[in-house]
Amino acid sequence: MNKRIAAMNKKISPSNRASISIFERLESEVRSYIRSFPVLFDRGLGSTLIDAGGREYLDFFAGAGALNYGHNNPAFKKPVLEYIERDGIVHGLDLATSAKKAFIEAFERYILKPRGLNYKLQFTGPTGTNAVEAALKLARIVTHRSNIVAFANSFHGVSVGSLSATGNKKYRSAAGYPLANVTSLPYDGYLGPSVDTLDYFEKLLNDPSSGLDIPAAVILEVVQGEGGIYPASFQWLQRLRDLTKRHGILMIIDDIQAGVGRTGKFFSFEAAEIVPDIVTLSKSLSGIGTPMSLVLLKPELDVWSPGAHSGTFRGNNLAFVAGHAALETYWADSKFEEEIARKSAILAEELKSIANDFPNPGLSVRGRGLMYGLVFQKDHSLPVQISREALRRGLVIETCGGQNEVLKFLCALTIAEADLRRGLSIVRDSISAVKNTMANASPKRLHGSER
Amino acid sequence: MNKRIAAMNKKISPSNRASISIFERLESEVRSYIRSFPVLFDRGLGSTLIDAGGREYLDFFAGAGALNYGHNNPAFKKPVLEYIERDGIVHGLDLATSAKKAFIEAFERYILKPRGLNYKLQFTGPTGTNAVEAALKLARIVTHRSNIVAFANSFHGVSVGSLSATGNKKYRSAAGYPLANVTSLPYDGYLGPSVDTLDYFEKLLNDPSSGLDIPAAVILEVVQGEGGIYPASFQWLQRLRDLTKRHGILMIIDDIQAGVGRTGKFFSFEAAEIVPDIVTLSKSLSGIGTPMSLVLLKPELDVWSPGAHSGTFRGNNLAFVAGHAALETYWADSKFEEEIARKSAILAEELKSIANDFPNPGLSVRGRGLMYGLVFQKDHSLPVQISREALRRGLVIETCGGQNEVLKFLCALTIAEADLRRGLSIVRDSISAVKNTMANASPKRLHGSER
Amino acid sequence: MNKRIAAMNKKISPSNRASISIFERLESEVRSYIRSFPVLFDRGLGSTLIDAGGREYLDFFAGAGALNYGHNNPAFKKPVLEYIERDGIVHGLDLATSAKKAFIEAFERYILKPRGLNYKLQFTGPTGTNAVEAALKLARIVTHRSNIVAFANSFHGVSVGSLSATGNKKYRSAAGYPLANVTSLPYDGYLGPSVDTLDYFEKLLNDPSSGLDIPAAVILEVVQGEGGIYPASFQWLQRLRDLTKRHGILMIIDDIQAGVGRTGKFFSFEAAEIVPDIVTLSKSLSGIGTPMSLVLLKPELDVWSPGAHSGTFRGNNLAFVAGHAALETYWADSKFEEEIARKSAILAEELKSIANDFPNPGLSVRGRGLMYGLVFQKDHSLPVQISREALRRGLVIETCGGQNEVLKFLCALTIAEADLRRGLSIVRDSISAVKNTMANASPKRLHGSER
Amino acid sequence: MNKRIAAMNKKISPSNRASISIFERLESEVRSYIRSFPVLFDRGLGSTLIDAGGREYLDFFAGAGALNYGHNNPAFKKPVLEYIERDGIVHGLDLATSAKKAFIEAFERYILKPRGLNYKLQFTGPTGTNAVEAALKLARIVTHRSNIVAFANSFHGVSVGSLSATGNKKYRSAAGYPLANVTSLPYDGYLGPSVDTLDYFEKLLNDPSSGLDIPAAVILEVVQGEGGIYPASFQWLQRLRDLTKRHGILMIIDDIQAGVGRTGKFFSFEAAEIVPDIVTLSKSLSGIGTPMSLVLLKPELDVWSPGAHSGTFRGNNLAFVAGHAALETYWADSKFEEEIARKSAILAEELKSIANDFPNPGLSVRGRGLMYGLVFQKDHSLPVQISREALRRGLVIETCGGQNEVLKFLCALTIAEADLRRGLSIVRDSISAVKNTMANASPKRLHGSER
Repeated sequence: MNKRIAAMNKKISPSNRASISIFERLESEVRSYIRSFPVLFDRGLGSTLIDAGGREYLDFFAGAGALNYGHNNPAFKKPVLEYIERDGIVHGLDLATSAKKAFIEAFERYILKPRGLNYKLQFTGPTGTNAVEAALKLARIVTHRSNIVAFANSFHGVSVGSLSATGNKKYRSAAGYPLANVTSLPYDGYLGPSVDTLDYFEKLLNDPSSGLDIPAAVILEVVQGEGGIYPASFQWLQRLRDLTKRHGILMIIDDIQAGVGRTGKFFSFEAAEIVPDIVTLSKSLSGIGTPMSLVLLKPELDVWSPGAHSGTFRGNNLAFVAGHAALETYWADSKFEEEIARKSAILAEELKSIANDFPNPGLSVRGRGLMYGLVFQKDHSLPVQISREALRRGLVIETCGGQNEVLKFLCALTIAEADLRRGLSIVRDSISAVKNTMANASPKRLHGSER
Repeated sequence: MNKRIAAMNKKISPSNRASISIFERLESEVRSYIRSFPVLFDRGLGSTLIDAGGREYLDFFAGAGALNYGHNNPAFKKPVLEYIERDGIVHGLDLATSAKKAFIEAFERYILKPRGLNYKLQFTGPTGTNAVEAALKLARIVTHRSNIVAFANSFHGVSVGSLSATGNKKYRSAAGYPLANVTSLPYDGYLGPSVDTLDYFEKLLNDPSSGLDIPAAVILEVVQGEGGIYPASFQWLQRLRDLTKRHGILMIIDDIQAGVGRTGKFFSFEAAEIVPDIVTLSKSLSGIGTPMSLVLLKPELDVWSPGAHSGTFRGNNLAFVAGHAALETYWADSKFEEEIARKSAILAEELKSIANDFPNPGLSVRGRGLMYGLVFQKDHSLPVQISREALRRGLVIETCGGQNEVLKFLCALTIAEADLRRGLSIVRDSISAVKNTMANASPKRLHGSER
Repeated sequence: MNKRIAAMNKKISPSNRASISIFERLESEVRSYIRSFPVLFDRGLGSTLIDAGGREYLDFFAGAGALNYGHNNPAFKKPVLEYIERDGIVHGLDLATSAKKAFIEAFERYILKPRGLNYKLQFTGPTGTNAVEAALKLARIVTHRSNIVAFANSFHGVSVGSLSATGNKKYRSAAGYPLANVTSLPYDGYLGPSVDTLDYFEKLLNDPSSGLDIPAAVILEVVQGEGGIYPASFQWLQRLRDLTKRHGILMIIDDIQAGVGRTGKFFSFEAAEIVPDIVTLSKSLSGIGTPMSLVLLKPELDVWSPGAHSGTFRGNNLAFVAGHAALETYWADSKFEEEIARKSAILAEELKSIANDFPNPGLSVRGRGLMYGLVFQKDHSLPVQISREALRRGLVIETCGGQNEVLKFLCALTIAEADLRRGLSIVRDSISAVKNTMANASPKRLHGSER
Repeated sequence: MNKRIAAMNKKISPSNRASISIFERLESEVRSYIRSFPVLFDRGLGSTLIDAGGREYLDFFAGAGALNYGHNNPAFKKPVLEYIERDGIVHGLDLATSAKKAFIEAFERYILKPRGLNYKLQFTGPTGTNAVEAALKLARIVTHRSNIVAFANSFHGVSVGSLSATGNKKYRSAAGYPLANVTSLPYDGYLGPSVDTLDYFEKLLNDPSSGLDIPAAVILEVVQGEGGIYPASFQWLQRLRDLTKRHGILMIIDDIQAGVGRTGKFFSFEAAEIVPDIVTLSKSLSGIGTPMSLVLLKPELDVWSPGAHSGTFRGNNLAFVAGHAALETYWADSKFEEEIARKSAILAEELKSIANDFPNPGLSVRGRGLMYGLVFQKDHSLPVQISREALRRGLVIETCGGQNEVLKFLCALTIAEADLRRGLSIVRDSISAVKNTMANASPKRLHGSER
């Protein structure tokens, strides 16, 4: 082992190693992020994570998009503490509570009204996948059709209803039986720049012999997250909206990862100037990352029977309290959107610069807002190595894409510009380090050593 | 309207009515409990709910089993407040955190070890249905079979995987397409006292021409909750355990509602002296009713690939903190079990007395621990009316069963004996009141009025 | 090998052995009957089969029920020859042809009118399974429901639609993926004599939480053939007819094996005095065993779109010609039914006598008309051995039941009484021979020999 | 009504009209071809059909491809008559019979050996769809995968297994429930000439996040028949063969309509010089149009359990006798192939000439061998009208394509050149007549008359 790697490894404190052994012993093999980041985390503040040994990490992952406002945002922490102090209802099923009422009022005031959106709200079980399950059910009930169109590289969750609409083989095969009632079609750009994939979709719809069962709905992310940071163009989204309208097909935007400001506006579809029939929200909606999910549906689609989609934790009132604070703090005016745009410009520019500076690995940059990917076209193993190296250097950053070929930039929207630049600098250094390591390691490969 | 009813209605304060109008305007028709209890709740303490106008209600519903330790249990509230104060990680994906580590250690120490249970832990998306989805996937992956046996009157959740194993038509039909890969069989007692329904199951297994595709697993509740409070006998459970072992079928106990002390022990299956292969837990596991779910699996079944079942909110650390406190406070010794047994005896005895005192509606009593049902065999509309009447009198109590024919007693396990007796007294009075109202209303029926 | 077995084996002529080697070389391993009866058959006349070496066999199998009128019935052979001679249309799709017209007229005249039945006719692809596929589709289209109730031990065919309603694991597992949209319920007597299995069905229908998705139809054989010769009682059938009517569920009788006189009347359900909504016919309908299938449907169910269920061979005109002759020859009056009744009495009596004479293997007798089973309760391997022994003695007889535990009597309805008695005598002798062989063979087992 | 049409209508003899009334009364609404050709057919000889009134029709439909050798081919008629005369086995299940043996020997000698093909034979239920069901099952059993890739515009049958792989909405929706386990992909040319649709397929296979569950097999027609006569290019077929091999996916050629000489060689895939893993045959295989089906499978795929795919009519010996005669008569040398090539050239040339002569309706020509389509791009209603007009003029010709936009040329391969030219001449005249009628009829449309 060369000195450099030895030095890096030292940075993972032995106390961390020891302290997570109980997870290895007692937690199922299904555990995942703990493998990429084998650290015992203890506290979080804004974009900083602090481990049990006191070491600080810069967080470029933001709870996979659940912490758009950073960890323990002081603006939300206070009302949450007060709420618990005064014995506010914590668990409320779908009963009316003061906290839920305040959240709904704020959502109407700060989100729906200013955007001229007319939706009803369905609080589902507090996981994104549960919101998707509800959305798909509703689309099927309304249209009396069973098929759903989803897209290659999509991720909509892992419970069976959502999983059927998720592209990734790793998740799909875990179902243990064949998934059905979803047709996967090519997303914008999937067949290369010269093919408008909606030509194909429309041909399938118009051809009575195409084999496509007319779908109840299409479900899509405006920027595909888990699948590899693929943003759909606004034209494509507009054409899809038009096409679905003409064919009587509902449009469901899964805004669980791309929503709540992530791509620059509250909703990812705002910039494309389209209005979906159904929207799923979760992750950062609760402000502090406590579980919560929400389905928005056009009033004319509200054919639900009372209680037909239920769930014990639909009324997580701590989420209502913090989520309410978040709406009030960040969405009462356009300042936050402007702030995101500013940081987005920094991120995009710096990533392009990195891509230019490392021509060998064939880097490209994709994204929107503060949701970006640095794509390693040639060597799909690099992003994982870079993520590890970055951790050693104090940065938490994840990978995505079907083959983990994308380094995923998902910092808190509230990150300080200095931290953003600092993180990008660590990424740049980590790429260099990994490249050098590989160069040094190369001769060893000739001798058959395994890394 | 007779005076009595008018008087009762007055008891729902106009402020409550007005205050929940926003829910009616903006929340989807799917909302349910708010219809049974149209009150704007604000605070909760132990078994007491307090509405926005300050009125107190006795809670016999306990968050559908998510609040076994009552609202805002002071023993858990303090560590939660401290945790938030000190910026403990709130949202942790499935990263290692101090809070999660402490929970796992406590779970091993207070739950697994004393019972001689050897399980690995899988934290799933924080809804019961997500735990069930994971359990069913695992059973299918392990056995390479797709079919699952569930039972009539079962409730396992409403996401498609779990929904397939749920009996109720209201939920099933909301899927919008035919559910598959689950065979529903008769639960203990379903074919009357003279038929051992496991004879049927075993015949289906032994007969190669029976049409039953050999299942990966059976999934069951030890006391069926939502379906109408049906407790399985210990002999039946033991025979099922034996039968599944002999046929190489996994046994999954869904202990989401019946677990965490509800039937007298931590696990509902302890008293039957059986050890399932997989257990699902949720609801009261988090102590304060914040979302959390857990799958227990025998180590030899842990064939999961890393990340094959994922979810953003698997690491709800507020749940770990409160859940940890709950384990320490209530399960370090046997006192809590003794306390539950004492109250269970009171509940059972008093319900039998009520059943005796109202011979006309043909009441019967079913249950175990603090999970009891008062069954109205003759007139299935009564429990809903009694629940409404009880609400007017300050008691929150729900109904269950396929036709809401069962009044469901699900008070906090920590309820004071006086409150338990007071609630039962309100139930008794409510039955009387409804019966009287009906008697008074009867003559109207002659004139064609519809009820 | 003892002399007896050697002597028997000699009876399978070496020419037969040699002559079927090409089948072993070129035909798929899926071949089945050729394994039970490894003989090169050449000609057939009535109940006699003649092999390539000139040896005669008595046929107690009748083409699995496709040759109810025997081989090459002279009454049908003549019109078929004339038809071909004069270049009558052989293949007619679903075009109108003279031969098809004559068949339809005869079917109306001899079958529908005398029984007061009002059905429309759908000629499907000429396999029984295709008729079942059509029947199930129609039931689903009419009711807008997807589920079908079938029964344990049923056999309805092996194409996926029918296969889903077939109980046998051997067939089901060959689908290669999980079958769906059918619920298998216990047939008459499946849970023993003391349980009316329709109590269970009705409970499932009335219980909204039973897990049974209300079916479009029930499909059943009046006497289950392949599954082991289980006749449903008339009371059970009548109750099922009543129950399905009350619940708006269609009743499909699959009369492919039990119809066309097999159980004593043209339709198996006539004796029970019920009228199904849909009936499937095939096998002996064409008289000479050339492929043909027919679905009968109540006119009000005829919601088919033109061509929605198609198939190249729906118009097998040789089948129409021979089938027409069969209707005219056998069903113009009641003589044939009387003849069947006479032979049925002989068969039933003689089987009971055999059952009495061999108390050890625990024989029992089940059946109706000329569709009987001799059930070997104790040793499920006996029927196959007896079938082999009978073949050596010149009798072709098959087994059925999930474990081949039933010797199946399915002679031509036109069999001469002497032949019937002769065949039964061979069966009796074969049972004796097998029993003796087993007794002699027993000591060998001690020395580890394998049989 | 103008005189011309009146004159034409006279040609449908009143006796025909009257004589088919029983079909309208008693046969289900599902009947189809009888609607296009409302004639009571009686006899057939070669390419001539004769109705009950003695009128002759030229047959350009050939039993939808089941009569490639014409009606009642004298070369097959004689052995069939002799076979019946001498009481040859007609119905043989899957027993060994002399007739079946002779067929297998002939198939090996004339078809397999000369082409160097090494296949085992599976005789399935005698419908094309049953052969497809067997092929799909086998592919799934062999690979332990459930998904199948089929193509837009495919037709593989209407029993549920095959129907899932059939593109047409009319057939699919008749299933009455959602079809599953098949992914439909674009066939050669489906996305226009500039897109190689196999690029898309290969991308889906290589992308672990594509949403395509790796299929057990692809199933395809080399020339899509029912879907609109789409021939795949040889290059595309070769690439597909290569691609499937590399990915371990089986290739099933459904040669039910395009096989048995239809496209010029015995198998449609011969010219592309590929060898599929599994081939389905039916239709003309039996020579005289009596039902028969056959699956060819590579020996290493023969994992079938005995009897796992069964069916009463697998042994239609009249089909073996006539099919045997057909193989001997037409496939012992290359003369028949040369004859087909000659006629194919005439057909193709004449169709191109017609397309040139009628520029307005935007005609195009597609096909191979004696399987051609004249495509009416602009007015999809024309082919049906032309077919009707042709019938009046004594020619039976069908339409195909998802919207019946294709006039389908499917004459017997044995047709006399003079008849071929005569039929083409009738088509030309019919197009003229319909065009004139439309021109004349146009003013009427202004007055709202409906045609």
